[in-house]
Amino acid sequence: MHQDLVAALDIGGTKIAGALVDSTGGLLVRAQRPTPSRAPAEEVMAALAEVLGELAASPEWSGVRAVGIGSAGPVDAKGGTVSPVNIPGWRDFPLVGNVRERTGGLPVTLVGDGVAMAAAEHWQGAARGRAGALCMVVSTGVGGGLVLGGELHPGPSGNAGHIGHISVDLDGDSCPCGGRGCVERIASGPNIARRALDGGWRPGPDGDVSAAGVAAAAAAGDPVALASFERAARALAAGIAATATLVEIEIAVVGGGVAKAGEVLFAPLRRALAEFATLSFVQGLEVAPAQTGTDAGLVGAAAACWNLEGR
Amino acid sequence: MHQDLVAALDIGGTKIAGALVDSTGGLLVRAQRPTPSRAPAEEVMAALAEVLGELAASPEWSGVRAVGIGSAGPVDAKGGTVSPVNIPGWRDFPLVGNVRERTGGLPVTLVGDGVAMAAAEHWQGAARGRAGALCMVVSTGVGGGLVLGGELHPGPSGNAGHIGHISVDLDGDSCPCGGRGCVERIASGPNIARRALDGGWRPGPDGDVSAAGVAAAAAAGDPVALASFERAARALAAGIAATATLVEIEIAVVGGGVAKAGEVLFAPLRRALAEFATLSFVQGLEVAPAQTGTDAGLVGAAAACWNLEGR
Repeated sequence: MHQDLVAALDIGGTKIAGALVDSTGGLLVRAQRPTPSRAPAEEVMAALAEVLGELAASPEWSGVRAVGIGSAGPVDAKGGTVSPVNIPGWRDFPLVGNVRERTGGLPVTLVGDGVAMAAAEHWQGAARGRAGALCMVVSTGVGGGLVLGGELHPGPSGNAGHIGHISVDLDGDSCPCGGRGCVERIASGPNIARRALDGGWRPGPDGDVSAAGVAAAAAAGDPVALASFERAARALAAGIAATATLVEIEIAVVGGGVAKAGEVLFAPLRRALAEFATLSFVQGLEVAPAQTGTDAGLVGAAAACWNLEGR
Repeated sequence: MHQDLVAALDIGGTKIAGALVDSTGGLLVRAQRPTPSRAPAEEVMAALAEVLGELAASPEWSGVRAVGIGSAGPVDAKGGTVSPVNIPGWRDFPLVGNVRERTGGLPVTLVGDGVAMAAAEHWQGAARGRAGALCMVVSTGVGGGLVLGGELHPGPSGNAGHIGHISVDLDGDSCPCGGRGCVERIASGPNIARRALDGGWRPGPDGDVSAAGVAAAAAAGDPVALASFERAARALAAGIAATATLVEIEIAVVGGGVAKAGEVLFAPLRRALAEFATLSFVQGLEVAPAQTGTDAGLVGAAAACWNLEGR
């Protein structure tokens, strides 16, 4: 009952999840609330406070030594604030101060959700034991985090590895971030689906017009669906190759809903990587599916906390 | 006479330069030979040995404690070998072993020339005191190096920061590296000149068909020359913004012959950066001209040596 635990929080636009995490990555107590994503700042904080309250009510809480937060970004680890794109009520919201106050002054570590996912994959997933890794989530958006020199690299603000918003097509379509030709603008699930529909693909009897529907069609040989995944794979490959060329990584780990397409995504991704990762020091780059599942955000928030404490 | 010195070597396709560098960055003794870049491996090594021999003949040599090498890439710091694109006789050439043998077993540090330039700018140039920086050379090629967490980040193989060969145009022109739409393919001096000539620009009475000639025409308002620099600036901006988004840097330092164009390059570069560096944590990114000059390679090789020893 007195082992050292981290109270981990995973904050997204859909839900706020919390758990007490032990040093093996076990989740002892869980709590969750839907994110009132369109509500004012206090209301979002109230939902978070309920999650914390439920965790604090458990007898295991006495073992909690620190709080780790992985939040939808951008975050500002220096200032302790968050401004998640999909929670408009929180702009420069002083999350760390609020959480510290509600937990009796526990140390609080804040990172972006992509960094947390990378921490989880480095601790217990496909990036375990790797000195250099890019871990990505390809889903509604595209995010990521980096391991460099064997350690998590959150960057000073906690946002490093944000591969979804690097441009791989400088003349490409405008991205909601304000940029142009971003990886996310080409490779996210909604963009895979949009491109297939624009190309004349129509969903099957189940009416699934999501990227999963396109993946099923691609697996069955539909050329438009295949082409949309091919395009997404090329954008991901250009982004992954850029990362490897810039900072030297051994492996790119890809998770998130779109990665569930399996070889429909990974086969063209490996082919395109061979085209874009050309220099001798990046030719050996591996690509692998993520191994941590839906709890990656919580496990990663705890891992980031242990990794970054004392740095 | 007994101060600690580094024997620094700067190896390029045109010349092999050497110097004894003191702890203030002063160059005490110099030696230089043209690179026999088309010659067999032994002949290139013989030219390097002459440089080393000239340095070793000086009375100051007794203060030398280590050798620092910045070489045209790619290099392999782990294996101690180099395979410079522009010195075809050297492929997986065991440079570190050869130099160690010729210097009585001194410790030898090897990095790519872009990393050496970054070490020089971080020590004595525009990146001084910065926790995160990308330092670039825009010249016949485009290279670079990174400072992360206040320290040089050469990467395991010594090639990190190789921004010239990240793709910013995934449908773009083939690059000699094997990739497509690389920053170098758009922004290097020869590519600036080629694009201007293709667009109908003709050199002035001096017949200068290099990027410097294009820069002079752009400064005088020639629209084709301006457009060619604008295009180069957009490619550089996309690459710099990608780097900042991936690893969080505060400043991008740009040196090399093309940077001598001054505001002809830097004005469109700053405009394009505002377009591509959109996320909150990269909006404050600065761009500045390099401050170290032609000795950057030697000073940086020494700096890299001091930085990386004992890591």
